[in-house]
Amino acid sequence: MKIGIIGAGRIGKVHAESVTRFVKNATVEAIADPFMNDKTEQWAKELGIPKIYKDYKKILADPEIQAVLICSSTDTHSPISLEAVKAGKHIFCEKPIDHDVAKIKQVIDALKGTSLKYQVGFNRRFDHNFRAAKAAVAAGKIGELNTLSITSRDPGAPPVSYIKVSGGIFLDMTIHDFDMVRFVSGDEVEEVYASGAVLVDPEIGKAGDIDTAIITLKLKSGAIAVVNNCRRASYGYDQRLEAFGSLGQVEVQNDTDSTAVISDANGVTKEKPKYFFLERYMAAYTAEIESFVNAVEKDTPVEVGVNDGLQPVLIGLAATLSVKENRPVKIAEIAAEYAL
Amino acid sequence: MKIGIIGAGRIGKVHAESVTRFVKNATVEAIADPFMNDKTEQWAKELGIPKIYKDYKKILADPEIQAVLICSSTDTHSPISLEAVKAGKHIFCEKPIDHDVAKIKQVIDALKGTSLKYQVGFNRRFDHNFRAAKAAVAAGKIGELNTLSITSRDPGAPPVSYIKVSGGIFLDMTIHDFDMVRFVSGDEVEEVYASGAVLVDPEIGKAGDIDTAIITLKLKSGAIAVVNNCRRASYGYDQRLEAFGSLGQVEVQNDTDSTAVISDANGVTKEKPKYFFLERYMAAYTAEIESFVNAVEKDTPVEVGVNDGLQPVLIGLAATLSVKENRPVKIAEIAAEYAL
Amino acid sequence: MKIGIIGAGRIGKVHAESVTRFVKNATVEAIADPFMNDKTEQWAKELGIPKIYKDYKKILADPEIQAVLICSSTDTHSPISLEAVKAGKHIFCEKPIDHDVAKIKQVIDALKGTSLKYQVGFNRRFDHNFRAAKAAVAAGKIGELNTLSITSRDPGAPPVSYIKVSGGIFLDMTIHDFDMVRFVSGDEVEEVYASGAVLVDPEIGKAGDIDTAIITLKLKSGAIAVVNNCRRASYGYDQRLEAFGSLGQVEVQNDTDSTAVISDANGVTKEKPKYFFLERYMAAYTAEIESFVNAVEKDTPVEVGVNDGLQPVLIGLAATLSVKENRPVKIAEIAAEYAL
Amino acid sequence: MKIGIIGAGRIGKVHAESVTRFVKNATVEAIADPFMNDKTEQWAKELGIPKIYKDYKKILADPEIQAVLICSSTDTHSPISLEAVKAGKHIFCEKPIDHDVAKIKQVIDALKGTSLKYQVGFNRRFDHNFRAAKAAVAAGKIGELNTLSITSRDPGAPPVSYIKVSGGIFLDMTIHDFDMVRFVSGDEVEEVYASGAVLVDPEIGKAGDIDTAIITLKLKSGAIAVVNNCRRASYGYDQRLEAFGSLGQVEVQNDTDSTAVISDANGVTKEKPKYFFLERYMAAYTAEIESFVNAVEKDTPVEVGVNDGLQPVLIGLAATLSVKENRPVKIAEIAAEYAL
Repeated sequence: MKIGIIGAGRIGKVHAESVTRFVKNATVEAIADPFMNDKTEQWAKELGIPKIYKDYKKILADPEIQAVLICSSTDTHSPISLEAVKAGKHIFCEKPIDHDVAKIKQVIDALKGTSLKYQVGFNRRFDHNFRAAKAAVAAGKIGELNTLSITSRDPGAPPVSYIKVSGGIFLDMTIHDFDMVRFVSGDEVEEVYASGAVLVDPEIGKAGDIDTAIITLKLKSGAIAVVNNCRRASYGYDQRLEAFGSLGQVEVQNDTDSTAVISDANGVTKEKPKYFFLERYMAAYTAEIESFVNAVEKDTPVEVGVNDGLQPVLIGLAATLSVKENRPVKIAEIAAEYAL
Repeated sequence: MKIGIIGAGRIGKVHAESVTRFVKNATVEAIADPFMNDKTEQWAKELGIPKIYKDYKKILADPEIQAVLICSSTDTHSPISLEAVKAGKHIFCEKPIDHDVAKIKQVIDALKGTSLKYQVGFNRRFDHNFRAAKAAVAAGKIGELNTLSITSRDPGAPPVSYIKVSGGIFLDMTIHDFDMVRFVSGDEVEEVYASGAVLVDPEIGKAGDIDTAIITLKLKSGAIAVVNNCRRASYGYDQRLEAFGSLGQVEVQNDTDSTAVISDANGVTKEKPKYFFLERYMAAYTAEIESFVNAVEKDTPVEVGVNDGLQPVLIGLAATLSVKENRPVKIAEIAAEYAL
Repeated sequence: MKIGIIGAGRIGKVHAESVTRFVKNATVEAIADPFMNDKTEQWAKELGIPKIYKDYKKILADPEIQAVLICSSTDTHSPISLEAVKAGKHIFCEKPIDHDVAKIKQVIDALKGTSLKYQVGFNRRFDHNFRAAKAAVAAGKIGELNTLSITSRDPGAPPVSYIKVSGGIFLDMTIHDFDMVRFVSGDEVEEVYASGAVLVDPEIGKAGDIDTAIITLKLKSGAIAVVNNCRRASYGYDQRLEAFGSLGQVEVQNDTDSTAVISDANGVTKEKPKYFFLERYMAAYTAEIESFVNAVEKDTPVEVGVNDGLQPVLIGLAATLSVKENRPVKIAEIAAEYAL
Repeated sequence: MKIGIIGAGRIGKVHAESVTRFVKNATVEAIADPFMNDKTEQWAKELGIPKIYKDYKKILADPEIQAVLICSSTDTHSPISLEAVKAGKHIFCEKPIDHDVAKIKQVIDALKGTSLKYQVGFNRRFDHNFRAAKAAVAAGKIGELNTLSITSRDPGAPPVSYIKVSGGIFLDMTIHDFDMVRFVSGDEVEEVYASGAVLVDPEIGKAGDIDTAIITLKLKSGAIAVVNNCRRASYGYDQRLEAFGSLGQVEVQNDTDSTAVISDANGVTKEKPKYFFLERYMAAYTAEIESFVNAVEKDTPVEVGVNDGLQPVLIGLAATLSVKENRPVKIAEIAAEYAL
């Protein structure tokens, strides 16, 4: 199976290397980036990618290529998705499909009636820790789910210039946690109440966003989820989860580079969590592409479908409205706006 | 210093034994309980308590007794407090002072102009773990507080008969967590949003209460606290806290009976948390009485004053209203009702 | 039951306070110390001890006293034991009974034919952690014991003046670990090989002792134990144990003052172990006396008998010889010297 | 740089995949195995290895190949090493070079005067945990090393047929731990005392070997190391280390597949260690080959040289003699036998 990668930024490169090194039965046939330069071209050649372009349309037009990985800037995800569907390519699209629900709907509509696979890049579903939590819940080890608590903090806030085009913390950062709520619970969110604050950087507040939030989510089953977000944790990328139920609790902790513990006159000290998403989720990035290739090859359902791309956006919009109006907001209220 | 204990139930006995065994410069001079029976009398005699009564008024009338510990049923806390103030006794009162804010106000008013000490029995403030968390926050080790997360779960729900007179989960159980929010943050709560569910026992729902809740609290500083409650945890009494700030995080875990870890073909297993409050907080019960005796002896402020008894009740009432009307409720709204 | 305490040093005081506060059916009737001074007398009076002496013989002569706790200097343990047996007192004797096996034999011989209880102060047998390890082994949770590893390090070395009269590290410090080997394994030691070094303080070496050691012990069952000793651990009192067997392993870790963990830019840090034996084993000191009182009252066997006092001394002497001659030494070789 | 792999068994395949996927500037040009079959050939072709042989001499004769990885059976390591030296190839040789010191000496002698690199496959030196321990010790974080404790247990014993040709537990299994002692301490072993037992399988005893051992090693610096070995741990591959020194201690724990912890009525349970060496050390296998390729490319010293291959064999022979004669054995005694 030959793959074309659209976008040769950080995540595009991660996927290119994963496919080349690890993913059986798949090779990277082409990579395209409007900012393709000598250095990136050199990297692509060393990796053995035969076709290197500035224009992604050449990838869509290539009959040898069966599937594309859309790793370009967020605003191009949905339009390129639509073009790729027309070109008959299977699609792996980085999250989010779009911040605009109407555009996600267009992608959903375009896919109808085709047999094309469409997977969304929620990489955490492939993380060994979250997968272990999901497995424990799904196996009934904690009984009925009662509460689900996610702690999700970045090591540091992105530049304010990025914040301004990010869609806000809920669509940019918490969207992964909303996906985790759905993934681990196997349930849907009905209502959101979000409490936000600007505690990291006043510039983020001036840009109309928040940097710290506690979000409560009521699930269809009656269970309650809560997400604890901050754009900055001095000790690194904090990615933990606790699922509590009628029979017990499963929790997953952060990963570290080693298990070393030093005891001295100052205390008993272990390592900080792995620094950020590339360190923590590298294996997950490979696993999600393997899963996608496998779904295409065997014509089985993708593990993270287009609806899994839509739902966290709806939750994120509800959370945004909740902070703005300081009230709980039903997902149905957002969905109704878009006639979903 | 001679102490009279009003109420010889479980917690009255705990305090009697603490004073007798551990608290320097204090002895139990008398104990009273309307249901005083042979067995309790025998226990009191063995402990060396000279005066054993059915009627607590004998304690209030005893000029040798300087201080009383009010350990009777909740509905008697505020009236006996008023009588004890009149009798000129220093008072240690089990939590809550009352579910009715108006009655707490009466106690506050009665104390005005006196030099009597009045301490409320929020024992967790004297727990080694929560004290270590508070100390870390107060020492600036986590920088500015951003979020505070409390997990508080009982090993099992009380009988529904108790639930019915408990004042509801927020005034009965979460009230301790509301106190912890104030204690660890050193801040006041401005607004509450509570999300509740009946997931443990439908009978609790029929009694008009909930058994599972996530409560979000906005603090004056802008920090956000969240409490994760359940009336039942299969693995025991779950009492943890994480305070996260600009420089880092402090978390405290559960206590266990031993540090033993068994590794076998099934996994690597350590002990469950200590079973319930008597096991977990026994040392804290002693420490709070020591603190009270010390405050009386040295005429220093008590560590948990009458306002510390009032505030969590206001928060609890706000949380109750929040669930009822599914909206965030400001503490000021509750306070205004009572002209506070 | 009335108890006399012989020796009002640190450990005598600990026992006096334990008996007074915690031990049911027992009171301290008298305490004696040749260096009894005003301050100690004041302390004893406040504790409510009626009889305060310089001469322990007054305790032995007191017909009201049923049992004595021998907490005097090590060299007096065996002679006072002999006198106490003659006086018909039950005896709790701090470890070691003596460094001289011949003198221990005299005590054993003196006890023959009497119905007196004789318990040795191996307090670690009453520690919650080691007791949990012992319980797991005894319950078969690790199957057949294969290896037993003990880490035992003091926070700092005692003065060289003490080292000189201590009997050497094996009789002074490791003797507790030898007792733990016997306690947890339920087995006897057959042979010892000890490797020692002077790595903490050269003055200890000049005094003819070592400060760091690894001791290998072959048990009768074929299992092997190993003790890892050092007179100085910068991070506090290090008291851990791992018992490994055919079905798994049980390990016990150090205790800490709280479970607080601080995560910041420097790492994820928990507290150091409790500082030294008084902090770590305070509850064990009470439990051993409770056990002794109980054995006297109910006429049941003591939990740590006179042979439990003898065996670790034999092992310690074997270890001492092993280091001196750099060869494995059989316990039988030492026992034979004393015609045991 | 083109590499030839001699031996296509489990570890040869691991190295072939590592080089192909991860190691920059190196490719597998050829692989040879006397038992080369269709399945292995198919695997090699899919991996893109151009030359597939039964006879390793074709690799040695190939002028395009600069370096060989010797992954054949242990008895062939030293003769093939000698041939490879003659053929002018850089050599990575799986451990041990040989059980016979004389044959290792031949390899050392053959390398003299050449500029060939010779690295020994002590993979644990490249494990993230042991490397973190080594780094802490080397950085002075624990001060002067006093004791070093290694726990090293396999999940299960190999077949007795393997035991018989293994050279015994010390040359087969403990040899890695002896290497770790040298690696982490940066010191040399002077004397060994080993205590062994047959506790896992009597058949191992009948084959003249032991399956459980505690080995004490005196280092030149005066520090003492101890290795705790067993051929069977019910809970998986147990690979831990504690280095204790004048300023503190560093310890490394086992790795697990995830950080999931389940709390329920039975306890608080985390995962067992990763099952065995392929699971635990997969990344280390890649890292050691990267290190070797790097040393060849940049003409820098290898990280694990031929003397690092020799020393653990001497220690292993000393340990074997120690068990046989139940006495401490100096490494110099073994070295003298071979005129080293």
